Amino acid sequence: MAAAKHERVPAASLAELFSPKSIAVIGASSNPTRFTGKIIPTLLRQGFKGSIYPVNAKSAEIAGIKCYPDLAAIPDQVDCIVYALAPEQMHTALRGANRLGAKLLVVASAGFAERGDEEGKRLQQELVALAHQQGMRVIGPNCIGFANFADHICATAAAAMDWPDIQPGRIGLVSQSGGLGFATVLFNALEEGIGFSHVVTTGNEADLDTIDIARFLVNDARTDVIAITIEAVRDPQGFIEFLRYAREAGKPVVVLKSGRTDLGKVMAASHTGALAGSAEVFEAVCRQFGVTCTHDVDEFYQIAAMFGKLRAAGKLKRPVAPGSKCTAFSISGGHIGLFADHASTHGLQFAPFSVNTMAAIERELGFSGNFQNPLDTTARAIGDDAFWGRCLKVLLEDESVEVAVPIITVARSYDRAIEDFIALAGQSEKIVTVLWAGGSFEGNGMRLLRESTVPVFRTAARAAAAIEALDRYCTVQNRIQQPATTRNADGMDKARAILCAAADGARSSLTERESKEVLTALGFPATRERVASSAAEAVAAAQDIGFPIALKGEHPDILHKSEAGIVFLNLQDQDAVADAYATIVERMLRAMPGDKRGRVLVQEMLPQGTELILGVTRDPEFGLVVLCGIGGIFVEILNDVSMRLPPFSHDEALRMIGELRGIKILQGARGREPVDLGRVAELLVALGDFAVANRDLVKEIDINPLIAMGGDRLNMADALLVLNREPAP
Amino acid sequence: MAAAKHERVPAASLAELFSPKSIAVIGASSNPTRFTGKIIPTLLRQGFKGSIYPVNAKSAEIAGIKCYPDLAAIPDQVDCIVYALAPEQMHTALRGANRLGAKLLVVASAGFAERGDEEGKRLQQELVALAHQQGMRVIGPNCIGFANFADHICATAAAAMDWPDIQPGRIGLVSQSGGLGFATVLFNALEEGIGFSHVVTTGNEADLDTIDIARFLVNDARTDVIAITIEAVRDPQGFIEFLRYAREAGKPVVVLKSGRTDLGKVMAASHTGALAGSAEVFEAVCRQFGVTCTHDVDEFYQIAAMFGKLRAAGKLKRPVAPGSKCTAFSISGGHIGLFADHASTHGLQFAPFSVNTMAAIERELGFSGNFQNPLDTTARAIGDDAFWGRCLKVLLEDESVEVAVPIITVARSYDRAIEDFIALAGQSEKIVTVLWAGGSFEGNGMRLLRESTVPVFRTAARAAAAIEALDRYCTVQNRIQQPATTRNADGMDKARAILCAAADGARSSLTERESKEVLTALGFPATRERVASSAAEAVAAAQDIGFPIALKGEHPDILHKSEAGIVFLNLQDQDAVADAYATIVERMLRAMPGDKRGRVLVQEMLPQGTELILGVTRDPEFGLVVLCGIGGIFVEILNDVSMRLPPFSHDEALRMIGELRGIKILQGARGREPVDLGRVAELLVALGDFAVANRDLVKEIDINPLIAMGGDRLNMADALLVLNREPAP
Repeated sequence: MAAAKHERVPAASLAELFSPKSIAVIGASSNPTRFTGKIIPTLLRQGFKGSIYPVNAKSAEIAGIKCYPDLAAIPDQVDCIVYALAPEQMHTALRGANRLGAKLLVVASAGFAERGDEEGKRLQQELVALAHQQGMRVIGPNCIGFANFADHICATAAAAMDWPDIQPGRIGLVSQSGGLGFATVLFNALEEGIGFSHVVTTGNEADLDTIDIARFLVNDARTDVIAITIEAVRDPQGFIEFLRYAREAGKPVVVLKSGRTDLGKVMAASHTGALAGSAEVFEAVCRQFGVTCTHDVDEFYQIAAMFGKLRAAGKLKRPVAPGSKCTAFSISGGHIGLFADHASTHGLQFAPFSVNTMAAIERELGFSGNFQNPLDTTARAIGDDAFWGRCLKVLLEDESVEVAVPIITVARSYDRAIEDFIALAGQSEKIVTVLWAGGSFEGNGMRLLRESTVPVFRTAARAAAAIEALDRYCTVQNRIQQPATTRNADGMDKARAILCAAADGARSSLTERESKEVLTALGFPATRERVASSAAEAVAAAQDIGFPIALKGEHPDILHKSEAGIVFLNLQDQDAVADAYATIVERMLRAMPGDKRGRVLVQEMLPQGTELILGVTRDPEFGLVVLCGIGGIFVEILNDVSMRLPPFSHDEALRMIGELRGIKILQGARGREPVDLGRVAELLVALGDFAVANRDLVKEIDINPLIAMGGDRLNMADALLVLNREPAP
Repeated sequence: MAAAKHERVPAASLAELFSPKSIAVIGASSNPTRFTGKIIPTLLRQGFKGSIYPVNAKSAEIAGIKCYPDLAAIPDQVDCIVYALAPEQMHTALRGANRLGAKLLVVASAGFAERGDEEGKRLQQELVALAHQQGMRVIGPNCIGFANFADHICATAAAAMDWPDIQPGRIGLVSQSGGLGFATVLFNALEEGIGFSHVVTTGNEADLDTIDIARFLVNDARTDVIAITIEAVRDPQGFIEFLRYAREAGKPVVVLKSGRTDLGKVMAASHTGALAGSAEVFEAVCRQFGVTCTHDVDEFYQIAAMFGKLRAAGKLKRPVAPGSKCTAFSISGGHIGLFADHASTHGLQFAPFSVNTMAAIERELGFSGNFQNPLDTTARAIGDDAFWGRCLKVLLEDESVEVAVPIITVARSYDRAIEDFIALAGQSEKIVTVLWAGGSFEGNGMRLLRESTVPVFRTAARAAAAIEALDRYCTVQNRIQQPATTRNADGMDKARAILCAAADGARSSLTERESKEVLTALGFPATRERVASSAAEAVAAAQDIGFPIALKGEHPDILHKSEAGIVFLNLQDQDAVADAYATIVERMLRAMPGDKRGRVLVQEMLPQGTELILGVTRDPEFGLVVLCGIGGIFVEILNDVSMRLPPFSHDEALRMIGELRGIKILQGARGREPVDLGRVAELLVALGDFAVANRDLVKEIDINPLIAMGGDRLNMADALLVLNREPAP
């Protein structure tokens, strides 16, 4: 994805760029088997109605169209220029583009920054400067063009465009990789009868980048869903802003993410020059924004196609969690069992049918006896083509159903059934998704389905995964958005003040005590503690707090207290406290001779509890991330950490906690008292709000552990706030 | 799957049954749109060369073939009878089958045990009795027949058989569910150009069952791989014996398993009448036998097809773990990244290329600079059709490569590339698997691939999953089999003797002390402990063992010692031991007045360590299962338990331990001393051998915990052996 820090193009302004009425192709070849020879035949084959100007001094005509020796020879306006010559020729070849009024330059040539050397980089910078000077924005270089299927403007050299008659569809696809986007995704989707509004490849992204294009697609009326292939996110802030923009427009986003594993990251880096960040953070972002994150080509375009259909049908607006309200039916018990397995794995739920539905099943379908959801109709539908529609109608009327999945296998023809499914889906605001786990020999069943707004899948796993994606999208999109504002303005101010005071020097982090003061101001419950300036004060403080007691030395330049021997735990009486005090003072002075900044903290000893870890970290891609985990092996061995980009709501914080694999521990497993998760969520929200408001100063916050003793009894046993010493992001 | 406890048919004897030269169809309809009207047209369409005898008193001919009013009217020999009338007519209709010499009865009619009532069951029993009496074995009832594609004998009513010209293939498929096997799997596989040697549906399995058919397929020379759909395993012992048989024959087994989740189990039970057991145990069995366990239709037949091709090419015999020796190459960096991700997720490994390979890449492919495995060739192959083969040839010559995956996307034609791939795969004993993530417009590329023994997949995820399956199969199949015999015959005898003595009464379990004696005889390290008959003896024993010490009361009728208040831990001195002794004796006598069987154990206190749980349990499907886990949250919250059916080898035990998610804990994470896993494996092997040898008496063994203190310092802190009180299985 895009290099950061270029000015974002307003989404609307790109519409004109990708709808040129006239196109010049510089370096067009008359040999259609060559890369440069494919562009003009593709424009013609895919129905371009505007003017085409081949530019090639050595040919008189290409594909029957008059050739021009250079741009200067073209007498008319040219909206878009496709450049397919060597980098070195650009200055000569692009001269005069300005005069023609060209607005978009598509650079299909390679030999720029992807070479990996300085010369390549320099050429790429020159290219962009030249294009801007001539009044053009650039896609590429090293891309294979774009296809605006809705307007039949396909300026690309992609081999998949040999497809004879491509019908436009609802998916807007942007792909840095031409091999993924314009080869595999397009070809496979076309095989399945799935079309696109636009496909844009961005190559080296020297000027316009993935996010510019994705924003343009959000703004495009003929695009219902935005599909993006992502290897590494180079402009996370721009990506998040794009996700917000798409959310406001009510357009689902589906990504194909690679660069998830160590090896995948290495490969992505050598391909795109950008290092992919943590797969966990990326997936947390997707979860937070209702984005579907897919991992293989077929699930990518098939799930995108589902969203496109359902949005076109106006079915993405119901404020429900559809995954919790599923039904399915089949004449094959084997298929019902298989789908039940996959649906369960994807968290889908099948509520028992209502009494009314039970009665209707008996009355309308002639069933007797027990029947459950999902419904095994047994083979009684064979020979009764109207059965399928009757069955769907009955199930759609159940109040607890939002998504119905007819599962059909093989028959000579399914036309009647499919006509009925499409009609019923059209009459209902509920969602019908066909799982066609087979085929037919006669009729137009599959064509009807493809042309309808009823999604269709061929495998139980894919159908279930798609409904889970739908559920995630609807749940995020249609929930009542809680304001993520902090209710504790005073505390925020106080915390900021402590932070600023500490940040004033050259220090890289706050002391434990300062860190806890900041967090206490935010609402974190702190250990009872006092500063003691003498052994007598330490003993008095210990008596007030109650034995057993902990004593800790604290010095701004001693980060590792235990190693410095200035931590004494579990002191049982006054003598022990006085001895410990003396030892701490002596060791601090020995470590920092003459330095009087050392102090001694007298702290209560905390009872046993579950150790939580709350924190803020900086992801190399997405910046500030709030995380929580359960201490010990959950975090260390199982990497069981849940994450969100701040700010977020209390509900979102609860979902975040709920994603922990060890959640049972907090809910009272193994005889523990359940922890008040609402209280933990409050702390996470406050932590996120504080981190966002102080992103100039906060690098990391680590509350490790926050001891949960059951109920709302929580206590920070240790905390560390690391300061940001780089320029504010 | 099959009802248990019927006599297994010798695999060879079924060959004749499924190769009938003459077939009578009782209840054949002249209406080809009806279920009963499809059978004869299907036989004809699929090229049956033998004699067909429609039996229908109301028609003169069906599909141009003379009709007979009943079996008695048929003058010739009939090898197979298909029955499609109502259950009630069977006595009349099947009369005289014996005289015709029929050996196989295929019952397509429903209305038997699947009705779920007593009458249905009775009719089914009558059917089998009648068939046996007439000299026939039965498939069904409630099945949809069988297809012997190799001999063009397709006696089935399946709608998918409308396919015009089905070519035989290498997969033998058995499916209880006709909807899964003869509809979805067959249709989808045929769409992909994948053929079968046999497809057999078994329906209610009143006589021949899934395992009979699967064994027949192992014995069938034209079958290279056995594919089975499984909802619930009804005869686990038979299933295991089949797996051993397939292993000896070197034929891979691929299963499509449903009934994995709670809902899936409910659905499977209502469909088949059998309750699926633990998905974890089933998957452990698959792992142990190298069986590929798939969860959706497409991965099922596609992975089966891969095994079929590779076995036919003789490539399944190399004693290597192919998954650790992979390479891949593509002109698309995007695809390399995507495949690298999926491959990593499936545990595949890409070793760096050797120096020779590096040199060959430069020499043969014209690369310069760095290149890594997998290889992004960049677009230089475009326009050079011979490049693909050259590249594969170079990579196959690398010593660290066993599996090479060319990844191709979209081109006008890939014929030359694919011809080269097929030729190179034929010349090498290594494995080539094509990932074709796109398509072509001209040429025969896909047809060539399908007809070759080179496997092809269309998605990165599937290709990676298939190679993982291949690796598991080869690793199990080709490893040097260690004898699973116990090296400790004396210990086994001694353990058996203790067990027998304890089992002699009416007791349901052994005491802790007896359980530990059994396990100590097997080689388990026990806590140092002595029985004390007086306070003085207890004190003396404590002094010998060393303080701190534990005292426990032990009584054959007191199972829960802690609750009875007769466990005292961490006793520090002689007085504490004497007091505890008195209290234990008093409490045991109060609980069991006048009963003198109570004793007092003096035990060493064990230092802290990692708690392991080792045990034997009985799975409702598969019987004795050995398990191991790490104590505490791993077992209780994460259900992190690894399982094997005993007996198994030391290597297998090591793999079993290696599957634990918390394995890092045992390898020394968090500052612990690593545990000697070889020693733990020895104990698991001994436990398995003992359980098998004593399956008449052992119901469960629970060693919880076995404390691992680092290295080979292990100690049973508690153990319980529960006796089997049911007749020996």
